[in-house]
Amino acid sequence: MARAVNLTPKTGRRLTDSLPQDRVADHVRLLAERPTGFSLAAPFYTDPAFFTADMEGVFGRHWVFAGSIAELPDAGDYITVEYGPYSLIVLRTDDGGINALHNVCRHRGARVLTAPSGTTGNLVCQYHSWTYSPEGELIHASAPGEADFAPGCFNLKRAHAREVSGLIFVCLADEPPEDFDEVSAVFEPYLAPHDLSRTKVAFQQELVEEGNWKLVMENNRECYHCDGHPELACSLFPTWGLTDGIVPPHLADVWERNLSAELSLQQRCARYGLPYEVVEELDTRIAGIRISREPLDGEGESFSESGRRLSKKLLGDLRDFRLGRCSMHLQPNSWFHFLSDHVITFSAFPLEAGRTLVRTTWLVADDAVEGVDYDLETLTHTWKQTNLQDKAFVELCQQGTSSPAYEPGPYMKSEYQVEAFISWYVQRMQEHYA
Amino acid sequence: MARAVNLTPKTGRRLTDSLPQDRVADHVRLLAERPTGFSLAAPFYTDPAFFTADMEGVFGRHWVFAGSIAELPDAGDYITVEYGPYSLIVLRTDDGGINALHNVCRHRGARVLTAPSGTTGNLVCQYHSWTYSPEGELIHASAPGEADFAPGCFNLKRAHAREVSGLIFVCLADEPPEDFDEVSAVFEPYLAPHDLSRTKVAFQQELVEEGNWKLVMENNRECYHCDGHPELACSLFPTWGLTDGIVPPHLADVWERNLSAELSLQQRCARYGLPYEVVEELDTRIAGIRISREPLDGEGESFSESGRRLSKKLLGDLRDFRLGRCSMHLQPNSWFHFLSDHVITFSAFPLEAGRTLVRTTWLVADDAVEGVDYDLETLTHTWKQTNLQDKAFVELCQQGTSSPAYEPGPYMKSEYQVEAFISWYVQRMQEHYA
Amino acid sequence: MARAVNLTPKTGRRLTDSLPQDRVADHVRLLAERPTGFSLAAPFYTDPAFFTADMEGVFGRHWVFAGSIAELPDAGDYITVEYGPYSLIVLRTDDGGINALHNVCRHRGARVLTAPSGTTGNLVCQYHSWTYSPEGELIHASAPGEADFAPGCFNLKRAHAREVSGLIFVCLADEPPEDFDEVSAVFEPYLAPHDLSRTKVAFQQELVEEGNWKLVMENNRECYHCDGHPELACSLFPTWGLTDGIVPPHLADVWERNLSAELSLQQRCARYGLPYEVVEELDTRIAGIRISREPLDGEGESFSESGRRLSKKLLGDLRDFRLGRCSMHLQPNSWFHFLSDHVITFSAFPLEAGRTLVRTTWLVADDAVEGVDYDLETLTHTWKQTNLQDKAFVELCQQGTSSPAYEPGPYMKSEYQVEAFISWYVQRMQEHYA
Repeated sequence: MARAVNLTPKTGRRLTDSLPQDRVADHVRLLAERPTGFSLAAPFYTDPAFFTADMEGVFGRHWVFAGSIAELPDAGDYITVEYGPYSLIVLRTDDGGINALHNVCRHRGARVLTAPSGTTGNLVCQYHSWTYSPEGELIHASAPGEADFAPGCFNLKRAHAREVSGLIFVCLADEPPEDFDEVSAVFEPYLAPHDLSRTKVAFQQELVEEGNWKLVMENNRECYHCDGHPELACSLFPTWGLTDGIVPPHLADVWERNLSAELSLQQRCARYGLPYEVVEELDTRIAGIRISREPLDGEGESFSESGRRLSKKLLGDLRDFRLGRCSMHLQPNSWFHFLSDHVITFSAFPLEAGRTLVRTTWLVADDAVEGVDYDLETLTHTWKQTNLQDKAFVELCQQGTSSPAYEPGPYMKSEYQVEAFISWYVQRMQEHYA
Repeated sequence: MARAVNLTPKTGRRLTDSLPQDRVADHVRLLAERPTGFSLAAPFYTDPAFFTADMEGVFGRHWVFAGSIAELPDAGDYITVEYGPYSLIVLRTDDGGINALHNVCRHRGARVLTAPSGTTGNLVCQYHSWTYSPEGELIHASAPGEADFAPGCFNLKRAHAREVSGLIFVCLADEPPEDFDEVSAVFEPYLAPHDLSRTKVAFQQELVEEGNWKLVMENNRECYHCDGHPELACSLFPTWGLTDGIVPPHLADVWERNLSAELSLQQRCARYGLPYEVVEELDTRIAGIRISREPLDGEGESFSESGRRLSKKLLGDLRDFRLGRCSMHLQPNSWFHFLSDHVITFSAFPLEAGRTLVRTTWLVADDAVEGVDYDLETLTHTWKQTNLQDKAFVELCQQGTSSPAYEPGPYMKSEYQVEAFISWYVQRMQEHYA
Repeated sequence: MARAVNLTPKTGRRLTDSLPQDRVADHVRLLAERPTGFSLAAPFYTDPAFFTADMEGVFGRHWVFAGSIAELPDAGDYITVEYGPYSLIVLRTDDGGINALHNVCRHRGARVLTAPSGTTGNLVCQYHSWTYSPEGELIHASAPGEADFAPGCFNLKRAHAREVSGLIFVCLADEPPEDFDEVSAVFEPYLAPHDLSRTKVAFQQELVEEGNWKLVMENNRECYHCDGHPELACSLFPTWGLTDGIVPPHLADVWERNLSAELSLQQRCARYGLPYEVVEELDTRIAGIRISREPLDGEGESFSESGRRLSKKLLGDLRDFRLGRCSMHLQPNSWFHFLSDHVITFSAFPLEAGRTLVRTTWLVADDAVEGVDYDLETLTHTWKQTNLQDKAFVELCQQGTSSPAYEPGPYMKSEYQVEAFISWYVQRMQEHYA
C-alpha cells in the first residue's frame, strides 16, 4: 500500500461544521437579541446544536481548570479530563512541567489512557501498542516492513497547559487568549500562602447533574438561593446581596456581626501580609475572575457547623486558623475556596446539552493524617450536602427551561455575578463568531 | 444593573421554529397525501420533528382532559400534568374554580411544584422562594434593593381550564376552539347521573408505553384486537363491528343475547331518564366526541368476570346496578367508562415520539369503604390487565412502523373509529398549518 | 369507508430522504476525499445521518449473512434477524427452501414474530390475527363485511434469500448484485467437506458493542492487535503480517514452525482433496471475499490452548482432525472459521451509529453429545474471550473517534485487509450515490 506521509489529511474540521446552518444562525441571532439582565433563551440550555457551539466557542478557546498539583505531584502522574467530545491526558513531566495531550491514538483513534488518574512512563495505546513519549511523540509503532513509515508525523496532538500557584489549566485553542498572564498575576498572591504544593487530595467527588453547564454556573454565581443550603448557612453571613443603608431590621445584628468579622479579618490579613481586597473582573476581561477574602460566621475558621477548623494542620506557612475563606471564581467553569485548613476546588465539565459533571476536590496539608488530624466525613459534609442541593436546583431549571412556556426571567441585583457570567458568555461567543 | 420591566422579551417562539424547514414541509406534504382509510406514513409515528409538530398543532391548541374533580375536590388541591415539553399545575381555587398555570417559575425557569399532586396555598418556588398566588400572580420575591422590580410583570403564565360534569380540561392556546361548549352540552346529561362530585379516587395507574401517542389512540379506538383481552372479553359482547344480516352463525346466539341486553338496557334507561343513544361526531367537529350507553355481558353490572358489581355503593342518585357502561371517547387523547358502581378515566400523555404515558384512574362512591364495599385488586383487575395487553400491542406497532418496509395499511370497516381519529388528526394539523 | 385497493400508497421512501441535504452532501464529499491507506473521517463512525446512509447503501443493497442451516434445519423453522431499522423473518419452507419476509404486518405495522427463533406454520400477527402463509401471502384477515377487501394486495413484503453450502444470505435490494453466484462458486468447495447440513448449534452468543459497525469490521480484519488475545494466540502463529526476508530474529523459530505446518497442511489437503489456496478478492468485486485454509499452532486441530480437538466428532466426511482452519471473510459484515471438529460463524449487525450486535454461533456435528463429545465451556472459551477483548478495542475507538482531535490515521501494511474493507465500503457507497 503506497502511502506518502504528506497525505495526512488536514481536516480543519470545526465542531459547528456539522450543524444545520439555521441552528448556527439562530445561535448568533439570539446572542445579539439577549436583553441585559435576563437569563438566556431556552435553546441555550436545551438545544444540542447550541451545546456544540459552546464546546467550540467557549471550551475550545479558553483556559479551563483541569486539576491541582496535589493530583499529580510527581513525574509520570497523570489525570484524564473529559468535557464535551474531548478527552485530554494531563501529565507531569520529568522536568516538573505539565503536558496536555489529546487522548486519541493517531493510528486508529483509540483512547490511549482509560483510567481517571494514575502514573505512567511512556504512553502505550492498548490496541496496537503504539507508544508515545510523555511529550506525545510517537516513539514506537511495531510495524514490520513499514520502511516508509514516519512516526514523527503521528504524534499525539497537544493542547496548551500551564500551572499557576499549583492550579493546572489547559487550553485547546491554537492560540490561547493572552490575558491569562495578567489574571495569574492577580490571583497568585492570594493563593501562595496556602501553598498547594504541600497539600494532598483528601477526597474527590464526581456528581453528574442533569442540567446544562451554564445553569450549573448560574447557580454557582449567586447566593440568593442560599436558604436552600442549611449546612452552608452556618458559615456564610446571611447578608449576601445587602448593602449598607438597606439592611432589614431583623438582619441588623447579623450585619453588625459581619462588619465586625470583616474588620477583624482585615487586621489579621494586614498582620500576616495576606491580600483580601475584592478583585472583580468577571465580564470585563477574557479570563474573567473574581477573588476576595471574606470572613466566615461562627468561629470563622472553616466550613463547619460551629465554624471551627476541619483539619488540625494549617496549610503552607499560615500561622492562624481564623482567616475566613479566600474565594475565587474563574470563567468559564471553575470556583475555589482557600481556607487556612483546607482547599476545595470545583469544576463543571459539560457532557451534553442537559448533563454536566461537577468535580469537587478537597485538599488538606500533606502531613495531615486522616482520622487524627481530620475526619473525612466531617471535612466533606458541608459541601457534599451543598452540592446535592445545587444539583436539585439545577435540575429544576433544566426541566423548566425545556417548556415552551419558559421565557428569560430577570436577574435580581444580588445576582449580578450571574449576569456577569452570562454577559461574559455572550461576549465570548460573539467574538468567536466575529 | 439597569432593567426596565418592559424589556421582558416577547419570544413568541413556536415549537416548530427550531425544526429544519424540510421536516415541516414533509409533514405538510404527507398530511396532504394521506389516502383515506389507511394508517399514517411512518414518520408520523417515529420522527421527533413530527412529534414536535403534534405538540404544537394538537396539544398546543385543543382541550385536553387533565383529571377529575375527585382528584382535586377542595380548595388548594392540585395536580401536575405533563405532556410533551409542557408541565402544568392544575389547582382548585378558594371559590371552587379551576386554574391551570404553567409550572415554570418566571425568575429562572425552575419547576415550581414537583409532586404529582398535593394541597397548597400560595405557590412557592423552591429555588429562590418566589411566591405566587393560586391565580399565578407573583406576590413576593424577596429582593433587597430592587426598587424597580415590578412583580406584576412576572406572573406565572396561565392556560385555560374548565370543569364540566366533574371532568377537568385544559387548553394551552391563546384562543381555545369554541365548539367545546356544544360538546359539553352533549355529554353532560350522560355523566350527570354518575355525579363525579360524590366520588373518590380508588386507584391511579401510570403506564409508560414505548409507542407514539397516536398508536395508543388507534389501539384504543377499535376492538378488532379484543381477542387479545381475555379479561375484558367477559364484559364485552363479541359482536363488535358486526351489523345485522352479516352475523356469522357461531355468533348468532351472542348476537341475540346482545340484542336482548340492549333492549333491556333501553327500558331501564327510559325508566330512570338516562340518555343512551349513540352520539358520534369523532371527526365531524373540532372537539371530536363519541358517547353512548351500552350493555355489558353476563350480569351486566360492571367490568368483572361474572358481570357483577365491583363496588357495593351506587354512584350519585342511581338506583340500579344494571346500567351497562356509558362510554365516551374524546379527541385527542382521552376515553372514559361510567358505570353504576365506578368510573374509569384514561388519558394518553405524549412524552416523546416513541413514548407515551397512559394514566388510568378508578373512581368509586365517596362513601364506599375499601375492603368493605370493594376490593381494590378485584376492582382494578380487568383494566390493569387490559392496559398491559394494549401496551404490548402498541409497542409491536412502534417497532414495526420503524422499518422502511412499513407502509400504511388499510383500516377495516370495524376500525372506522380509528379512521375517524386519524381523519380528525389530519384535519386539525392542516388547519394548524393553514 | 370506501377503499380501493389500488390506493395502497407507493411510498418509494428512501432512508436518506429524511436526512438534511447537507449531511448527505458531506457524506458524498468525504467519500471522495478519503485518502487511500487511512481510516475514515470521524462522522463515518459517529454521525447518525451517515449511519442511515450506510443502512441504505450497504445493508439495503448487498447480500448479508443471516444464519446457517443448523439454525433452521426443518420446515417451519425460523429466525428473526434485525439490523438498522429492519427486521426480517428468515424461515425454511416445506419444500426445503428459504424465504425472507419483512417482519411488519401489512395491516397496522405490528411486528409479526417477536421470538429470536422458533418453529411456525402460518405466520399469525398477534395484534389482529392477520395470517400469512410461509410465502408471505395474506391468507386470512377476519373482516366481517369487508367485501372489497383484497388480501392479495397485503402480503408480507419479501426480501431475497438464498442458501449456499448451508449458509443463508438475505438481500433487501429489488435487484441483488449479480456476482454472488461467482463468489458462491468460489467458496463452495472449501465449505462442502464440513457439511453444515449435518451440524447443530452448540451455542450462540449475542454481544452488543458500543461502536460503529465499521469499527467492528476493521477490528476483525487485522491481527496487528492479536497480542491483546492471549487465548487466541495459542492457535495463531505470531507471524501475521510478516513476509519472508523480513522476519525478526526472535520470530525465526516460529516462522520455521509455521512454514513446516503449512507444508504439512498442504500435503493433507492434497491427500483429502481439500482446497487450501488463498482467494483474496476483498475489494476487487462487489461480493468481496477472502478464503483460505491455514494451519493452527500446537496440535493444529482446533482453537484450544494445546491445539487439540474441542469436539470428538469430525464434521461431514472428514477423516482427519488436523486440518487447521478454513477461514472466510465476506463483505460487508461476516466472517467464519471452519475446522475439522466445529464451525464458528460471526456477523455484525448495526443497531445505531455507535452500537453493533455481534452474533457468534458455534456448530458441532449433529451427533456430537454435549458433556460426552464436547464440553460447552471449553468449546466456546477462546472466542468468548476474544470477542470480549475485541468489544473493548472497538469501544476505545468509538470513544476516540468522537473527539474533534481525531483525524484519520494510517493503516499499517499488515492491516491491508482493513484497507480493503474500507476501500470496498467507499466503492459501494459511491456506486450507490452514482
